[in-house]
Amino acid sequence: MRKNAILNAREIELLARREEITPAELRAGLESGQITVVRNRGGRPLAIGAGCYVKVNANIGTSPARPEVKAELEKLRAVEAAGADAVMDLSTGGDLARVRREIMAASRIPVGSVPVYGAMVNAVRKYKAVQKMSAEALWEQIEAEAAGGVAFMTVHTGVSERIVRGLADGERLINIVSRGGSLLACWIAANRRENPLLEDFGRLVKIAARYGTALSLGDGLRPGAVADSTDRFQIEELLTLGRQAAEARRAGVPVLIEGPGHIPLHQVEMNVKLAKQVCHGAPLYLLGPLVTDFAPGYDHIVSAIGGALAAMAGADFLCYVTPSEHLGLPGVKEVREGVYTARIAAHAADLARGKPGALERDLRISSARRDRDWAGQKRWALNPEKVAEAVGTESDFCSMCGEFCSMRFSEKLSPAKRKRKNG
Amino acid sequence: MRKNAILNAREIELLARREEITPAELRAGLESGQITVVRNRGGRPLAIGAGCYVKVNANIGTSPARPEVKAELEKLRAVEAAGADAVMDLSTGGDLARVRREIMAASRIPVGSVPVYGAMVNAVRKYKAVQKMSAEALWEQIEAEAAGGVAFMTVHTGVSERIVRGLADGERLINIVSRGGSLLACWIAANRRENPLLEDFGRLVKIAARYGTALSLGDGLRPGAVADSTDRFQIEELLTLGRQAAEARRAGVPVLIEGPGHIPLHQVEMNVKLAKQVCHGAPLYLLGPLVTDFAPGYDHIVSAIGGALAAMAGADFLCYVTPSEHLGLPGVKEVREGVYTARIAAHAADLARGKPGALERDLRISSARRDRDWAGQKRWALNPEKVAEAVGTESDFCSMCGEFCSMRFSEKLSPAKRKRKNG
Repeated sequence: MRKNAILNAREIELLARREEITPAELRAGLESGQITVVRNRGGRPLAIGAGCYVKVNANIGTSPARPEVKAELEKLRAVEAAGADAVMDLSTGGDLARVRREIMAASRIPVGSVPVYGAMVNAVRKYKAVQKMSAEALWEQIEAEAAGGVAFMTVHTGVSERIVRGLADGERLINIVSRGGSLLACWIAANRRENPLLEDFGRLVKIAARYGTALSLGDGLRPGAVADSTDRFQIEELLTLGRQAAEARRAGVPVLIEGPGHIPLHQVEMNVKLAKQVCHGAPLYLLGPLVTDFAPGYDHIVSAIGGALAAMAGADFLCYVTPSEHLGLPGVKEVREGVYTARIAAHAADLARGKPGALERDLRISSARRDRDWAGQKRWALNPEKVAEAVGTESDFCSMCGEFCSMRFSEKLSPAKRKRKNG
Repeated sequence: MRKNAILNAREIELLARREEITPAELRAGLESGQITVVRNRGGRPLAIGAGCYVKVNANIGTSPARPEVKAELEKLRAVEAAGADAVMDLSTGGDLARVRREIMAASRIPVGSVPVYGAMVNAVRKYKAVQKMSAEALWEQIEAEAAGGVAFMTVHTGVSERIVRGLADGERLINIVSRGGSLLACWIAANRRENPLLEDFGRLVKIAARYGTALSLGDGLRPGAVADSTDRFQIEELLTLGRQAAEARRAGVPVLIEGPGHIPLHQVEMNVKLAKQVCHGAPLYLLGPLVTDFAPGYDHIVSAIGGALAAMAGADFLCYVTPSEHLGLPGVKEVREGVYTARIAAHAADLARGKPGALERDLRISSARRDRDWAGQKRWALNPEKVAEAVGTESDFCSMCGEFCSMRFSEKLSPAKRKRKNG
């Protein structure tokens, strides 16, 4: 069987060109574990990590209340069209294996999964209780999803019995907001057993190595409220992930490190640098960070603030947050806005990190804006539809300033400029 | 005549309490010029500056294509309801004096204006050319608006003949994006004369002192593309503003300093600190900063990213940017979203700066979220409507995770917590 993540020389060259790094830099990053390539079996590779463009992931998936795969395939098309680099199937409703297969078959971008969901859903269906899941059933689920060719999988390998006991002290405002994390924690508490994924991390590494699946080491203890940010549970889990990242790397298994969570603005940079340090520079994959808890309905914006700052500080992969976060399952409109918003954060960080293609794009759209070239603005806009919808696209100025257009007034101040800058 | 900005002891006390600083701190800030109080004649005062909560301004105003005051009054109500702290009337269409009077009469929050607009619109109506405006007409307009009782006015006092000559070199991608700045620059270029507001800054200070109007020293040279960020024109103007801020302070006239503009993420903190340093700690009033040019339709989000980072670094007053920025005049829906989005940036910075009321609010909404208390979430949400619209508000979990609710699972891990944390 061909492993997902092995690249030939031609692929290395193409991938390096896409990331605007040299093939040697890409090879060095893969070697050191600072770049992780994820790909579906038979699919296109995606490079995530040091020196690469910041990437965006979109979560889709059924829920018990909305188990239809059709709606999720529609979301898949929407997030691909909006420019998501990867997608995760977080389904918990309907026939999970079928949903995953259909998403894998339809997706042109790498697909990630969270096997603990499938194992837990099965346990609930069979025994009416998550804690009755057998450890072996979890391993079987992991192997089945890896064998199914997913590009990467989230595994909550840092949720330890020790942390779960510690939570009983009641220090946290909200104990656990990670779904997989909370399910595993309940299992640990009910069975008075260590997390199988932590206890036998080597088995996980072997499965990942066998199928070429990247391991995304999940942050089951990510803070779910800014009051819980950077607490001992979060950091203790991170230390475990760091140790596991090193172990996986020794076995040649590429990893991603999942990061927090709800983090106030002044702790974002520190958290990113800490995670990078503790995890030996492994690519950092963030959900958020959400820099405040108080804006349900706007959490895509809240996370774009945190995500931009985090990516400037070194985070590599941003999981989108949609306007539905904390409120309900997103629809097509929400997933689309989620992707566009996360792409703003990623692009702002790429600009800050000096990626040449990012600045080029800003130069192009600003030149078009200066020239009141609406077709050009549409061409280079994040979401061309927004320009197309705008009023006044036929005129030499827009309805905001009307005839008092600063662009029109001030271009006369340096007549030679246009030739020089827009060549 | 009672000056707008003079506060009695009772007002000082109330204002300090609102800002969660001591009356002594407020007095010291007013004395040093690091806090500026703005108020309409007869209206409530608003403190902006060091140690205070970050404030949000909303721009409204007619345009030549949409001259009706009624629509602007509707926007005024919308931005007040969404929580704007101040509003600026940027009208350029219809009967400007009447529009301003009606907005002043209806507004419960401080109103700012930009007198150069009125002067320029009059010149265009009278002579069909902005450059034919007489300097005296500009001074009359300024005095009329100050006498009308506006709380603060933007004056582009740093747009110098020297800078306008410099722009002819064509270094900038977009010369000027400030409307007032571009109008003044054209006037300067056409008349080969210095900017009257710069040349006779003392006269401006005298008018402001007479009526108790705060001066918002405008950034006519703010970069309008990230490629132009932190260039010599922007910084040269800033140096002038710093000198003028000191002069105004010597005369007891409170100032605000208007900041950039389009600034890439990695230059935001530096720009804020530079402006604060050069302007002797005067309150910094930002439009944006927009951290990329490439997202028309999403510029409220783009500016929230920059605004949050800037306010964390010390900016005091954020001018909202609406989703219509770069595309057209915003409607009611856009101004509302603009305010909410700017408030996210302000609040995220308040959290980062340790303002007690900000953290309290996050604690309250997160406690409600943990407890699936939808009424509580609605009460503490930035925009309660967003919670009200959400699905599943009657149930013990939401449609995102359904029965696999991490809150519900994980609360069992520490049964004593609720009493301790949500008292």
